[in-house]
Amino acid sequence: MTRFAFEIAATDGEARTGKITMQRGEIRTPAFMPVGTAATVKAMKPESVRATGADIILGNTYHLMLRPGAERVARLGGLHKFMNWHRPILTDSGGYQVMSLSDLRKLTEQGVEFRSHIDGSRHMLTPERSMEIQRLLGSDIVMAFDECPRADRPRDEIAASMELSMRWAKRSREGFDSGEEHASRSALFGIQQGALDEDLRRISADKLTDIGFDGYAVGGLAVGEGQEAMFGVLDYAPDMLPIDRPRYLMGVGKPDDLVGAVERGIDMFDCVLPTRSGRNGQAFTWYGPLNLRNARHAEDTGPLDENCACSACTSYSRAYLHHLHKSGEILGAMLVTEHNLAFYQALMQAMRSAIGGGRFTDFAADFRRDYLRT
Amino acid sequence: MTRFAFEIAATDGEARTGKITMQRGEIRTPAFMPVGTAATVKAMKPESVRATGADIILGNTYHLMLRPGAERVARLGGLHKFMNWHRPILTDSGGYQVMSLSDLRKLTEQGVEFRSHIDGSRHMLTPERSMEIQRLLGSDIVMAFDECPRADRPRDEIAASMELSMRWAKRSREGFDSGEEHASRSALFGIQQGALDEDLRRISADKLTDIGFDGYAVGGLAVGEGQEAMFGVLDYAPDMLPIDRPRYLMGVGKPDDLVGAVERGIDMFDCVLPTRSGRNGQAFTWYGPLNLRNARHAEDTGPLDENCACSACTSYSRAYLHHLHKSGEILGAMLVTEHNLAFYQALMQAMRSAIGGGRFTDFAADFRRDYLRT
Repeated sequence: MTRFAFEIAATDGEARTGKITMQRGEIRTPAFMPVGTAATVKAMKPESVRATGADIILGNTYHLMLRPGAERVARLGGLHKFMNWHRPILTDSGGYQVMSLSDLRKLTEQGVEFRSHIDGSRHMLTPERSMEIQRLLGSDIVMAFDECPRADRPRDEIAASMELSMRWAKRSREGFDSGEEHASRSALFGIQQGALDEDLRRISADKLTDIGFDGYAVGGLAVGEGQEAMFGVLDYAPDMLPIDRPRYLMGVGKPDDLVGAVERGIDMFDCVLPTRSGRNGQAFTWYGPLNLRNARHAEDTGPLDENCACSACTSYSRAYLHHLHKSGEILGAMLVTEHNLAFYQALMQAMRSAIGGGRFTDFAADFRRDYLRT
Repeated sequence: MTRFAFEIAATDGEARTGKITMQRGEIRTPAFMPVGTAATVKAMKPESVRATGADIILGNTYHLMLRPGAERVARLGGLHKFMNWHRPILTDSGGYQVMSLSDLRKLTEQGVEFRSHIDGSRHMLTPERSMEIQRLLGSDIVMAFDECPRADRPRDEIAASMELSMRWAKRSREGFDSGEEHASRSALFGIQQGALDEDLRRISADKLTDIGFDGYAVGGLAVGEGQEAMFGVLDYAPDMLPIDRPRYLMGVGKPDDLVGAVERGIDMFDCVLPTRSGRNGQAFTWYGPLNLRNARHAEDTGPLDENCACSACTSYSRAYLHHLHKSGEILGAMLVTEHNLAFYQALMQAMRSAIGGGRFTDFAADFRRDYLRT
């Protein structure tokens, strides 16, 4: 069986559409991966996640290593069986989350020592341990262990951090390859760093390409730099990465972020926004986001989104969703999460179709006109 | 179309099985009604509630009158449309919940004045207003407005309270009948009071029967008196009520409460226990309840209940449910609520079958042996 294949079916400007083939299933690109932090896409059954159109979900190494623990997940048969999701899972390396602990961590060449946010217990993450954890989870797409500094740090700090991440990328590659059985049926992605500096991004891309990965992530963005700065990097960064490998923009983003990033050659995304917003009553539609807690929805008998076929939109009124969110009812989180994930997948499908039809420029313009009301 | 018909198909001792026919559907008895307090059975989609086997759910007048408000629900097309549940709904009268506000209420012959637990706003519930609210909601089975005192109050207080409830029952009957269109397609139940006093229960039953209702509830139980005292009342109270009308034990209860009450001639139940317990990680099984938060489930690859066909039991391990509840994940509440409702409905179906087959005594003995481990 094919371990990992990426096939580009069509391009339109920098935008590409195609598919990744892996043993657990195909991933249509551009792809959006719902985030399943703690072995669950929050407030969703896995069959409902699939019904929205998701081909792959993301799991978080940091959260899973702390609870329930990677060795425990392995003893229980792996993450797929544990959470009843049998299609591909991409796991992050834990690096990003550990870095965001700030005061609770200690960084060395070897790796990062940190304390658990759950119980204060002491843990160590290294490239080798991150690869081991992702192997224990049974991840399909493993991410290299990296450091992700804030984009506003001085250039020498960004450069040193990028160089460290590249040394860790090499160790990640070696660690991944040493797990031969798992490596024979999964993939490893490297992560480009360098913040907003084109030269550093070039150096990082070259080093990663020398090591060789199945796919390449653009890391270190969506950390507060703003959309304009992010698009500025995406104007050149994807082109530095191998044209025949999937490019993954980590932790992004808002619907207009996705369209702009696909326009610049990105193939994969993950973000907590649709699920987190769903729990807070913020819903995404083709005409922009709306907050269902707003009093103007209290007696609105219309659907959340008349263009959407999800169960929230076909079976309930905005007034009901408003009521559920005002009342703090779990069903409110369930329904708006489901809608948001359905919207994100519909957006990805629309982009794939537009690229396939050679009309992505028009699609993006129409999208921005309606969504951003520009 | 039939407004309301109750047909007893079989009896076994005091236990009865049959069905209620209403315009929105049939209700198999003995019936358990999941509680949908705020226009949602918490953490469940309505189609999933139905899939567990529920024929009818309960809505709370007190909660709905405060949020979103009865007039608003009426403007939005009624409670069924609002919450997307198109089978029968029984609404309580608000009396029980208002009484439990204690310091925040003021009781007169006219009714009860109280302050909202949500925003402190002032409201008045009377028999007439309770009937109006239940009509605005579009309830299928309307409950008379009553006062429910604590069972440990002095006898003269219990007696006076019961007499007041009987005067309110008459006013409820008149208020219900005045809503002619709604009354032509819904039913009104009276509520017997009298706490643990057989004479008062007799007086209450006679007064209610004189007024005449479609069904009769045994009220004022499950308020802290304990199972033995409750069964003591149920040894005589159901027999005081018309044999050809459904008997509803309000707010009950644990699985062994249900079996003992069916054994004593009860036909209908409602209780928050399966849903509330589901959110807390307590699961009901034929071998007793178990707490999924307990560490002994952390690596248990077996199903929650091997006798259950619900999605929680067929797709997940106890270890996963343990993880979800330890992590405070919404999916944990969703899955265990679904299981508990499925278990309650399976218990009702087993009782209906046992009564139909004339083997309820054996069923009840087997149930208690396994469930109570006696």
